[in-house]
Amino acid sequence: MELGVLYSGGKDSTLAALLLEEFYDVTLVTAHFGISDDWKHARETADAIGFAFDRLELDPAVAHDAVAQIRADGFPRNGIQQIHQHALERLARQEFDAIADGTRRDDRVPTVSRAQAQSLEDRHDVDYIAPLSGFGRTAVDRVVEDRLEVIAGPSEEITRADYEAELRALIADEDGHAAIRELFPEHDQTYVTGVHRG
Amino acid sequence: MELGVLYSGGKDSTLAALLLEEFYDVTLVTAHFGISDDWKHARETADAIGFAFDRLELDPAVAHDAVAQIRADGFPRNGIQQIHQHALERLARQEFDAIADGTRRDDRVPTVSRAQAQSLEDRHDVDYIAPLSGFGRTAVDRVVEDRLEVIAGPSEEITRADYEAELRALIADEDGHAAIRELFPEHDQTYVTGVHRG
Repeated sequence: MELGVLYSGGKDSTLAALLLEEFYDVTLVTAHFGISDDWKHARETADAIGFAFDRLELDPAVAHDAVAQIRADGFPRNGIQQIHQHALERLARQEFDAIADGTRRDDRVPTVSRAQAQSLEDRHDVDYIAPLSGFGRTAVDRVVEDRLEVIAGPSEEITRADYEAELRALIADEDGHAAIRELFPEHDQTYVTGVHRG
Repeated sequence: MELGVLYSGGKDSTLAALLLEEFYDVTLVTAHFGISDDWKHARETADAIGFAFDRLELDPAVAHDAVAQIRADGFPRNGIQQIHQHALERLARQEFDAIADGTRRDDRVPTVSRAQAQSLEDRHDVDYIAPLSGFGRTAVDRVVEDRLEVIAGPSEEITRADYEAELRALIADEDGHAAIRELFPEHDQTYVTGVHRG
């Protein structure tokens, strides 16, 4: 069975792929708006850890709507959530038997409710799997420690291919660099460079 | 890392174990009340599919409370839920780094809420993992079709080691055999006899 994992190059989506690789033919799929080349970081990681890779172009209007939402809110949560849902809808239309993402039990954003999952599956005749949704934070951290080589650091310095990088670029372009610090609270990100298989 | 999976011999808890075996040293643990010998069916399956096995004795008072609950309700859901929570509490006190069960996204019973999961982890300093909680019904069915050899049939005829078998025995003993049909709606159960690893 062919499965596409929505992929950022970070630890969560990498672990999601590792959990499913024994059961599916996994392709890592990085969604992007064509705003920056950050998706190439995800391709490098995919190559390094031995997975097939593809990219998925999203609708740039969704990025602009998300930025407007983030400006209005003063924080990124709802904008990121909108983009994640759009990316899942697009991924569900590709030629996969199943799709997956790296959302975890304790994530505040993005989240996919049971009703949203069921709706996605029914409308697109695809299985949606969130393999980390039954893992808490420490369970993920311990498996990551065992199995992944990661670089961690402040989100401004880590080059990965989540939506945040492109939204930051869009906001810097429109509002100047200072606006990024106002709207995106500083937090640590991870970027995966290798895996140890069991 | 040592992980104990609450195990019935059915497809869900077997699949939960398969999903985690690359990341943990897995022991299948069958909880029972000492009412019947049905736990031995789970040991047979564990041997057949190559996992370590252990059993976990539960408090018989919990079985009697559950039967009283089921009689009062006229259906088994709340009684089964009580037993599952008791079994997880007992399993969490064993010498495992992590514990898991086979609860799925679409299960009505048993369920473990995010708050219950967090509480279990905090009180017992253990990770609780529900690897199937991000899988819907068809995703589970497709992986089961690919990977497991199962026998399916009416719940009265399938010999597996879930709590239902012992509750049925207890009710038959106290109320007669006809009471079982009143309280437990007929449904298909599965019993795993083998696995195909990828």
